[in-house]
Amino acid sequence: MSDKKRTEIAELGEFGLIDHLTEGFQPKNKSTLKGVGDDAAVIAAGRDDAVVVTTDTLLEGIDFDLTYFPLKHLGYKAVTVGVSDVLAMNAIPEQITISLGVSSKMSVEALKDLYEGIEFACNELGVDLVGGDTSASMTGLVINITAVGRAKRKAITYRSGAQFNDLICITGNLGAAYMGLQLLEREKRVLHDMEHPEPQFKGYEYLLQRYLKPRARKDIIEVLAEEKIVPTSMIDISDGLSSEVLQICKAAKCGARIYLDRIPIAKQTTALAEEMHADPVVAALNGGEEYELLFTVPLAMQEQVMRLGLVDIIGHITRETAGAYLVTPDGSDINLRAQGFKE
Amino acid sequence: MSDKKRTEIAELGEFGLIDHLTEGFQPKNKSTLKGVGDDAAVIAAGRDDAVVVTTDTLLEGIDFDLTYFPLKHLGYKAVTVGVSDVLAMNAIPEQITISLGVSSKMSVEALKDLYEGIEFACNELGVDLVGGDTSASMTGLVINITAVGRAKRKAITYRSGAQFNDLICITGNLGAAYMGLQLLEREKRVLHDMEHPEPQFKGYEYLLQRYLKPRARKDIIEVLAEEKIVPTSMIDISDGLSSEVLQICKAAKCGARIYLDRIPIAKQTTALAEEMHADPVVAALNGGEEYELLFTVPLAMQEQVMRLGLVDIIGHITRETAGAYLVTPDGSDINLRAQGFKE
Repeated sequence: MSDKKRTEIAELGEFGLIDHLTEGFQPKNKSTLKGVGDDAAVIAAGRDDAVVVTTDTLLEGIDFDLTYFPLKHLGYKAVTVGVSDVLAMNAIPEQITISLGVSSKMSVEALKDLYEGIEFACNELGVDLVGGDTSASMTGLVINITAVGRAKRKAITYRSGAQFNDLICITGNLGAAYMGLQLLEREKRVLHDMEHPEPQFKGYEYLLQRYLKPRARKDIIEVLAEEKIVPTSMIDISDGLSSEVLQICKAAKCGARIYLDRIPIAKQTTALAEEMHADPVVAALNGGEEYELLFTVPLAMQEQVMRLGLVDIIGHITRETAGAYLVTPDGSDINLRAQGFKE
Repeated sequence: MSDKKRTEIAELGEFGLIDHLTEGFQPKNKSTLKGVGDDAAVIAAGRDDAVVVTTDTLLEGIDFDLTYFPLKHLGYKAVTVGVSDVLAMNAIPEQITISLGVSSKMSVEALKDLYEGIEFACNELGVDLVGGDTSASMTGLVINITAVGRAKRKAITYRSGAQFNDLICITGNLGAAYMGLQLLEREKRVLHDMEHPEPQFKGYEYLLQRYLKPRARKDIIEVLAEEKIVPTSMIDISDGLSSEVLQICKAAKCGARIYLDRIPIAKQTTALAEEMHADPVVAALNGGEEYELLFTVPLAMQEQVMRLGLVDIIGHITRETAGAYLVTPDGSDINLRAQGFKE
């Protein structure tokens, strides 16, 4: 190996890495309607329907810290993580599988807590747990979730569908989960050596809930279907708003303009950011794990979308050559940048 | 937590653990044709077809040792592990997703090797890589593979389908992958301190190949389809023959008799076992990761199955009350026992 070239993963970044590793993989089966490059793969099922499949891995020490993450919440969140990618295809989640790696230090009761959270989320979302396995882990807890959903083929929303002049819409508000994590990390540092730690969370319960028990926005997909709105593109906010907008721009070969003062940010998010001398807009732009949905609709649907009362219009799609920008209230343009490989 | 009961995972064993964790999970969607409890979940797709979905996680230090496992082989094997569960449903694998956790120590070139093995296996099996993600791992390499396949609903083989008097059939031979692993572990111990280790593998190449680069038996599923043989039940050998026979007995509420002298064992397996003062039959009964297929067919199909030339008939299904036994050449019956939780 010594005379071989060695490239660090950080040089490519997460998305560059996946592109590099999967280049040359060409779908061979006619049932593969969409392979890599979206929130989920799309597989033919009957003449008009499709099944979407997506998989995610959550690793202890990277994606969650068991010193403050209750296992019941973690189980719930794992389901949200998987199902959110299904929803982002405008599909209805129906099945999940859970594959665990657990250290022998973990008790059966602890795992039961994890599964109670999984079951709670499954019941809330109408999803069936249909499989999985459990094996020993040398190190920390490893949770893999595969989620399967279903949609009419013509209703499926691909990232690549965004068109010039489309409106960019976002559900809920952003930065809350990120600030929830900051709060938990702060209290962990502060209370590190105490025998009976009493963390101070008062006034920020919403932020904790958004980080520890985020809801998958199935309600949005249902409302869009009722209103017969098929977005031109959609993605969920798992890596941060900037990163997701750039993913749509890359897939649809377009540009985007996002208006800073239109980005929805909750009061608690702003309050905690100020208390921690952080910028709430940075939290909203770069904070991942929000599981809100970002989607685009034709300009003509502006009123219809606003009437839903569930969505903010934060910008619009431009030509690819125009680039992807955040527009500040004073009118300056800031290049949107994606977060790098999480380490 | 201090006054809560604490049950060790080892007390329940792997299968008992999964049963315990998933009890109370009832499928709610009519598209869920089969949930937990088989090699893969079965999901409706069109009126006559079904999609099967299965997921597995491979953990460094548990499922593979990178000191002797070439990454290209590991990629190949990961595909085999996933696809084998699809085949065991009598379905044809069509798509996989790969989700990785990688430490920053790993170079892009190393990951490219892993993906070359994945691509090689995908091409050999006619399978499309349709998704996945890569995230940082604090510890070792984590590989999750989800495999999706397709079959006519009426062709799907469930473990529960085995009937009284059915013949128990096995493809290939058993214990080879297990002895391959023993050989690699022995050479690792012996060469531990050497600067230029030269492991001695001569004469045992087949065993190494069976452990490092096992083939998924898609050929068997194709031949069975050509011959219009639909097994009454099927399972792949991932945890060992004894364990798999017991799984079928449990699902089908039946007993089984396996004849020791009918179990196919390769010459190299026997030779290495003797050299290492081990029992080749124990390797064949308990050795996992063989990825051969174990299936049952009605007694009337005996000649048809034997004519395939690809399968050994090693026993038959009995009443549940008769239990599950290994019958030795001298006529004594030994209770079949499953391996415990891998630690």
